[in-house]
Amino acid sequence: MIAATIENGEVTPREHPIPEPGSGEVLVKVAAAGLNGADLMQRAGRYPAPPGAPPDIPGLELAGEVAALGLGATRFAIGDRVMGIVGGGGQAEFAPVHERILMAVPERLDWSCAGGVPETFTTAHDALFTQAALQAGERLLVHGGAGGVGTAAVGLAVAAGARVHATVRDATLMDGVAALGATAITHEGFVEHGPFDVILELVGAPNLSANLDALAHRGRIVAIGMGAGSRAEWDMHVLMFKRATISGSTLRSRPLEEKALTARRMERSVLPLLESGAVTVPVAATFPLAQVAEAYERFAAGGKLGKIVLVMH
Amino acid sequence: MIAATIENGEVTPREHPIPEPGSGEVLVKVAAAGLNGADLMQRAGRYPAPPGAPPDIPGLELAGEVAALGLGATRFAIGDRVMGIVGGGGQAEFAPVHERILMAVPERLDWSCAGGVPETFTTAHDALFTQAALQAGERLLVHGGAGGVGTAAVGLAVAAGARVHATVRDATLMDGVAALGATAITHEGFVEHGPFDVILELVGAPNLSANLDALAHRGRIVAIGMGAGSRAEWDMHVLMFKRATISGSTLRSRPLEEKALTARRMERSVLPLLESGAVTVPVAATFPLAQVAEAYERFAAGGKLGKIVLVMH
Repeated sequence: MIAATIENGEVTPREHPIPEPGSGEVLVKVAAAGLNGADLMQRAGRYPAPPGAPPDIPGLELAGEVAALGLGATRFAIGDRVMGIVGGGGQAEFAPVHERILMAVPERLDWSCAGGVPETFTTAHDALFTQAALQAGERLLVHGGAGGVGTAAVGLAVAAGARVHATVRDATLMDGVAALGATAITHEGFVEHGPFDVILELVGAPNLSANLDALAHRGRIVAIGMGAGSRAEWDMHVLMFKRATISGSTLRSRPLEEKALTARRMERSVLPLLESGAVTVPVAATFPLAQVAEAYERFAAGGKLGKIVLVMH
Repeated sequence: MIAATIENGEVTPREHPIPEPGSGEVLVKVAAAGLNGADLMQRAGRYPAPPGAPPDIPGLELAGEVAALGLGATRFAIGDRVMGIVGGGGQAEFAPVHERILMAVPERLDWSCAGGVPETFTTAHDALFTQAALQAGERLLVHGGAGGVGTAAVGLAVAAGARVHATVRDATLMDGVAALGATAITHEGFVEHGPFDVILELVGAPNLSANLDALAHRGRIVAIGMGAGSRAEWDMHVLMFKRATISGSTLRSRPLEEKALTARRMERSVLPLLESGAVTVPVAATFPLAQVAEAYERFAAGGKLGKIVLVMH
């Protein structure tokens, strides 16, 4: 099979043996696989794949058809449309995935959308609802509202009745973010639009210190993206008097059991919204697997609304 | 009545009119009232009393006998031994307190101990259990383990089955902290004793940045005291990869309903431990109200195990 392959800081399509599904696993014939910030970090050698994932094939999410069943795998049948997060290896023609991680693809989603759902929507849902406990009526600020996780977060929060602001660095994308239901603002002076009950940080420094000023009493900051730098200085007195919380999270390093739990939460709370069309999956561009290097460059260039997705066939 | 009175950065005993209990309030004839760090801040003009509290009489906690009942107050009878947190005005011969804030004093506690319980034990219990959700078997680090909140936190955490380390600045107090059930350590090199699931920060900078290094995966830092400085710099990538949480809190500014909730939690989870003697209340020194200025100086000097308490009669 062909798979995106990282070598010496570059990503190219290369031939690999088709993997065998292990016990409880499903072999997925991948139709589409989204790109994520972690892929760029892995290409740069700064984010090695966790144990169990192929060391040189990137890709944290995929969608495709069930091609074979490993020992004891019973949740899906050959030919079912499935999608899920993986620790790596998603950007390939075939990938083995534990069946507890997989979700059925909503009928409404075509392959390019489905390939961009698992990582971004799981990350956004986990951060906003499992961690920050965002409630209807609360005021949310999403820093980096135009990206994959950002557009997912805006969509989910609007559907949950939150009042959403989103910062967007590229002014040409503000209308697109506003169309998802957020008040799109620039990064400069975002504090004046507050206070916010929840701030989802997808950019990193230089927002970090000002986030605490923009936070409401009992507010929560959740940091899940730090591409623009990660050092922050805070006055802990402000944290105390606001009775505020700052937390950080990643999805990739979690054990199977925790990843499976996030898949169950997705099935319960997110897939119905994608099925009904209440929440959409913006795809900025698709690239065939043969052009994986160009896809990475497009992702790294920024200035896109939603996902960059590789399509395999 | 006589009350501790703050004027021009000094605290002295002064004559005041005896307050009237309002609707739902109880007039407490105060027997003992503990000192807290916030009193020093208020003396220095840096922590004005919240609305509803007397502006010039400090004191965040008290214990004493019910002397009179306001309209509709039914939880206690004249002569009952009660204790509770107040927004201010506790260091006086009489103080009005809403009956929902008050708790019965366990029989085992004498007045000087009871006067030092409400603020410190409520603060410690709220931080460790309501906020950090400390579990049996988890590893706790208390920064500032010898003070009022520190000794309360060590006692409550040991009683809950946690494995407790506590930093102590004054080496002469290490045996006293160890006697409460903690492994007493110095501030230098505390990271090597980790990782810790929960860190209770009662000191402030310079611990703050190193706390993140000492934190376990999914660890929680709760900051409730910042006497040694409050600015901290963190690498948010570490926060993300550890999936960690940093939160801050104060008790004083909370509305009546929330303070009453903390009193109910105290009745359920803390008073039985004080009643049985499983948790003790270290009192470093008591002072008569006439020597309130000396009491404040003793508190400010540090190097004490547990509480400094004013006794009124």
